[in-house]
Amino acid sequence: MNLFGESHSQGIGVVCDGLEPGFLLDLDRLQALMDRRAPGGAYRSSRREKDQIEVLSGLFQGRTTGTPLALLIRNQDARSKDYEALRDLPRPGHADLTGHYRYGGFQDYRGGGHFSGRLTAPLCAGGGIALQILEARGIHIGAHIYKLKEAYDTAFDPVHLKREDLEGPRQRDLATLSQEAGETFKKIISQAQREGDSVGGLIEVGVLGLEPGLGDPIFSGLESRLAQMIFAIPGVKGLEFGNGFAATDLYGSQNNDDFYLAEGKIKTSTNHHGGILGGISSGMPLIFRGAIKPTPSIGKVEKTVNLRTLEETDLRIGGRHDPSIVLRALPVFEAATAWVLLDLIYGGGSHGRY
Amino acid sequence: MNLFGESHSQGIGVVCDGLEPGFLLDLDRLQALMDRRAPGGAYRSSRREKDQIEVLSGLFQGRTTGTPLALLIRNQDARSKDYEALRDLPRPGHADLTGHYRYGGFQDYRGGGHFSGRLTAPLCAGGGIALQILEARGIHIGAHIYKLKEAYDTAFDPVHLKREDLEGPRQRDLATLSQEAGETFKKIISQAQREGDSVGGLIEVGVLGLEPGLGDPIFSGLESRLAQMIFAIPGVKGLEFGNGFAATDLYGSQNNDDFYLAEGKIKTSTNHHGGILGGISSGMPLIFRGAIKPTPSIGKVEKTVNLRTLEETDLRIGGRHDPSIVLRALPVFEAATAWVLLDLIYGGGSHGRY
Amino acid sequence: MNLFGESHSQGIGVVCDGLEPGFLLDLDRLQALMDRRAPGGAYRSSRREKDQIEVLSGLFQGRTTGTPLALLIRNQDARSKDYEALRDLPRPGHADLTGHYRYGGFQDYRGGGHFSGRLTAPLCAGGGIALQILEARGIHIGAHIYKLKEAYDTAFDPVHLKREDLEGPRQRDLATLSQEAGETFKKIISQAQREGDSVGGLIEVGVLGLEPGLGDPIFSGLESRLAQMIFAIPGVKGLEFGNGFAATDLYGSQNNDDFYLAEGKIKTSTNHHGGILGGISSGMPLIFRGAIKPTPSIGKVEKTVNLRTLEETDLRIGGRHDPSIVLRALPVFEAATAWVLLDLIYGGGSHGRY
Amino acid sequence: MNLFGESHSQGIGVVCDGLEPGFLLDLDRLQALMDRRAPGGAYRSSRREKDQIEVLSGLFQGRTTGTPLALLIRNQDARSKDYEALRDLPRPGHADLTGHYRYGGFQDYRGGGHFSGRLTAPLCAGGGIALQILEARGIHIGAHIYKLKEAYDTAFDPVHLKREDLEGPRQRDLATLSQEAGETFKKIISQAQREGDSVGGLIEVGVLGLEPGLGDPIFSGLESRLAQMIFAIPGVKGLEFGNGFAATDLYGSQNNDDFYLAEGKIKTSTNHHGGILGGISSGMPLIFRGAIKPTPSIGKVEKTVNLRTLEETDLRIGGRHDPSIVLRALPVFEAATAWVLLDLIYGGGSHGRY
Repeated sequence: MNLFGESHSQGIGVVCDGLEPGFLLDLDRLQALMDRRAPGGAYRSSRREKDQIEVLSGLFQGRTTGTPLALLIRNQDARSKDYEALRDLPRPGHADLTGHYRYGGFQDYRGGGHFSGRLTAPLCAGGGIALQILEARGIHIGAHIYKLKEAYDTAFDPVHLKREDLEGPRQRDLATLSQEAGETFKKIISQAQREGDSVGGLIEVGVLGLEPGLGDPIFSGLESRLAQMIFAIPGVKGLEFGNGFAATDLYGSQNNDDFYLAEGKIKTSTNHHGGILGGISSGMPLIFRGAIKPTPSIGKVEKTVNLRTLEETDLRIGGRHDPSIVLRALPVFEAATAWVLLDLIYGGGSHGRY
Repeated sequence: MNLFGESHSQGIGVVCDGLEPGFLLDLDRLQALMDRRAPGGAYRSSRREKDQIEVLSGLFQGRTTGTPLALLIRNQDARSKDYEALRDLPRPGHADLTGHYRYGGFQDYRGGGHFSGRLTAPLCAGGGIALQILEARGIHIGAHIYKLKEAYDTAFDPVHLKREDLEGPRQRDLATLSQEAGETFKKIISQAQREGDSVGGLIEVGVLGLEPGLGDPIFSGLESRLAQMIFAIPGVKGLEFGNGFAATDLYGSQNNDDFYLAEGKIKTSTNHHGGILGGISSGMPLIFRGAIKPTPSIGKVEKTVNLRTLEETDLRIGGRHDPSIVLRALPVFEAATAWVLLDLIYGGGSHGRY
Repeated sequence: MNLFGESHSQGIGVVCDGLEPGFLLDLDRLQALMDRRAPGGAYRSSRREKDQIEVLSGLFQGRTTGTPLALLIRNQDARSKDYEALRDLPRPGHADLTGHYRYGGFQDYRGGGHFSGRLTAPLCAGGGIALQILEARGIHIGAHIYKLKEAYDTAFDPVHLKREDLEGPRQRDLATLSQEAGETFKKIISQAQREGDSVGGLIEVGVLGLEPGLGDPIFSGLESRLAQMIFAIPGVKGLEFGNGFAATDLYGSQNNDDFYLAEGKIKTSTNHHGGILGGISSGMPLIFRGAIKPTPSIGKVEKTVNLRTLEETDLRIGGRHDPSIVLRALPVFEAATAWVLLDLIYGGGSHGRY
Repeated sequence: MNLFGESHSQGIGVVCDGLEPGFLLDLDRLQALMDRRAPGGAYRSSRREKDQIEVLSGLFQGRTTGTPLALLIRNQDARSKDYEALRDLPRPGHADLTGHYRYGGFQDYRGGGHFSGRLTAPLCAGGGIALQILEARGIHIGAHIYKLKEAYDTAFDPVHLKREDLEGPRQRDLATLSQEAGETFKKIISQAQREGDSVGGLIEVGVLGLEPGLGDPIFSGLESRLAQMIFAIPGVKGLEFGNGFAATDLYGSQNNDDFYLAEGKIKTSTNHHGGILGGISSGMPLIFRGAIKPTPSIGKVEKTVNLRTLEETDLRIGGRHDPSIVLRALPVFEAATAWVLLDLIYGGGSHGRY
């Protein structure tokens, strides 16, 4: 998957390499996934982007050709002027300053440029194709908001996870397992929004149907691959598989998962390992959680330094902000996970680039 | 870096590609780093491996040639018989079962084979070269055991981190910042050892001297690259940068780091971002923490399934275990981090493979 | 460089990764390069494609941002119906049959799909950017038609090659060094065109200004890298560097190039090595020649097998053909060479993909 | 495949990644392949290297484990002193000068260091494993010396190529199809040897049993992949597939290969395309030829420049030379080809590196 685009460029998009030929792609479903990520609606930025996907290549008579599938999303409601004032004023918590260093001041500074969360649109589109292909192979991926600020949703049951658990959250307003958590989360978001502030949270991802034996040792382990991808999603600052950080509270005798036999297959009675041992899938549900920081764009006064004059100055960011990017990151987590797994199933080999 | 070897094969080793030519390598220091990782001594497995490095190529008259530097470590004290009994009995918490699935039963099952923690020896060796090169460029990396089971060491000060903080822990028995934490940790380990059990913990890594602007967006961000590497270290199940998971408890106005000017440079007054914004280094100290699960090898009875007969059975693992791999993982974290940063500084380009 | 598109898809394009930030791109010159490759005009296919480049991202205020630069070229004059009749009739010399095997019949069969020579348009566009960047660094690339069918142009002087030699051919109708060869070539092409046939030839590329020491040993040598790229251009079936195949006629004492000193630099008195020794540039002009087969699309009756009915049948291809793709491949050779060299100078590291 | 080593380092070797698990490797046959490449014997350098392979990892109970298979070959008869005199005197036709530029003088200059033809030993070893695996899959690779200086052997019949044709040459002294050519070649070599000179030639490779549909378009085409590999073999300066350069003498109507049906399969009545169309295998025999320059090491006086004093000087190289590297390159061509094809069949994905 090769992403391109900036927040305010002509367009953003993705080139998906190495897809299997002949897959009948459901473009409506893909667009529906995009809509879950799109801005607009309550609890979200009011930037109006339809995120309409245009297929440039790689799809013929509705099916993947197997050659690079390129998708383009035009930037439509890009109010560049909102950002002109920010040209020399790096926003705290954003990549404005580091992007400036990295690209010597030549980066497109409008709206975060290539570092913008907007780049998750093509990531979502590309991964959305993988979601459909995996589903056709019996592999299901779902996510929910497990934590928002200090409030928690019910966790996925790592042993008895079901397809309904994966699909339920996407039918609820705030992608939670429990309805109550959703109501609590709404209040947290509304309050943050009123105060011109923002909140972060945890997204928990579950995968069902993954055959055992998937992955490679060391640098190409399942955790290494997923981690490379998940940390590519803007705002992610933490990641854990299975028991994760909580495993450090336990003795080995508590954290190890005993093996037993069920219907001719070897399973574990608990799933502290999150479906991965030694970087290879065990056949148990794959479970991981990503920590997303609060949206750095807030309506409060912050301190910055003018890049041109090198003077310290106050900054209040105008524009349209998401009180929490956790909501919009959710379908991105699902799609990104799908891409990693599909790439692994295909053999890790993407083609056609120099 | 290309690792090879199995726990009980002729040897294990590493081929380091793309090193700069002309670097005067201190082999004694490299061996000293290896010794910090090696088994033996109190609180460690009693397997006796000197982990003596033999340079096969890439070093000429004491200096790197720039062409592949290959290191070999012979396996000497491999008691294969200890493991013969385990051939058909996958150990809970290990990659025995998943490795079996991945390689169709042809993997070297002795001592975990290629999945063995022993592979961190060449990883440490390769990364140790990077540590020396980075140090010559003014970049310093250090780590300490931040948490062992439920006890905590002092954390690195993410804003005022100093070289002494990075170097102090490696002079103490248990690699802690505070002497008291070290004593507490010793007790925890001794107790676990007595009970035939094991404990996990958190390793915190700090990096000083990294110039701002290092990294690439999206899939090649600093967090993505480090994550791919750190999750390659056996036993790692979680990773967080800067505030990490704790950022989800805060409002954006609390988590954002204000910019200010100090000696002509733009710095942040706090460092919740851990030195990375948008996947690019900010010039502030780089801070991250990895969560390591308790050593899966324990002396207690566990349940497994015989791969041949498919019968459930009890298992008590003989052999020599580490009560906690956290201790031995520490220099590996330092070395692995160094390799990622060096690779990035060189431009991400390793050469010479097909 | 990541190419996408099919001959008759919505569009074709390229994503260029890892470009240096801040380069002032001359879009008019880039378009002029495209026009040299485009169909239309005498001696060429009459398909009318303006090959108008649209910059989607990666360019801001006229300069490269350093983040992925995406270019789109719409397919406009795609007469899909011409090809509908060919659906089940693989054309001799084309990739219709092999593409059918590779993609199980799901490939876009119209006009060769992703295998079409039309894909050299985005290759030319991407490489054209590299051409401009290299030129700003004092590296100049030029090509001429060295042979067309059995007639030869003057060869580049591998020792005393000058910028005029590189730039002259692109000002002549048929990109030759000598005007006479151009006239002969025109006659050859016209005659082939009249007979509904086609001819191939040799393109010779010269590069001036390349510093010595560029390249990596073994799999990443300069010859290996250029070869991977040049054989990616449709129709190329042979490649030689310096003396190439003719070196096999000589003794070592004849083929070796003696060293001498000129203005403080070590040069070779002859240049049989073509500017590359051991995969590394020597500082002498880089010289190579690619062999291009005659355009497989011809107006004569050929034999094929119907993929559906498996019946042998005669085939006469309609549509608009190039009597020789050598002409249009010329700017592609220049651009493709530029990309390889730029990628190498940057350190071989392209970024931003998963 | 990751090669390491220098001509006079402790050892040279290879790490083979991504091999299938469970393959019963015939180490005697592998060693026999090595012996065909090894120095010693008539018509070859008299350097005595047994090139004894030591398996370090990746082989368990005689079978591949699927994890990295590392092979080590110790350098035994390295007469470093022969080369000490050459330290500052780059040999014409060798990579001494370019290697000096590339590595700033820190390269191991003894015997060509990492650029030495000696590195083809591990390449041969790694590829030799691929040869065995491919053979078990019904894919057979063979090569012969098609041309030595100005004398020719019979060419492979590209349409009716048989296994005997592939296997015959390796049973003859000089790896020719016709016995007479072998005798002629011997005379040419002996004469060159007597005169302290050297000769080059063409190696022709044939592959039988390759299924159609193998390869990927553009940069990952079969020709691009093979070319990257073949040009990695020291001394190769040209490469052509099928008709290659000779295709430029023909009209399209002559060069195109008509399709016909034979036993339910689509074949071509001629094979000017060499088994590859559009970078994808057609199912016809794969045929290519590589041009190898005369051994640059000769016994005659040449001119060079002292790197330290910058004085021009005469040079007569002592040591032990091959009158023609074509002989020893032959098994390397076979092995290298095998690796490319196996890598492609596996999906192009090698694993386990950072």
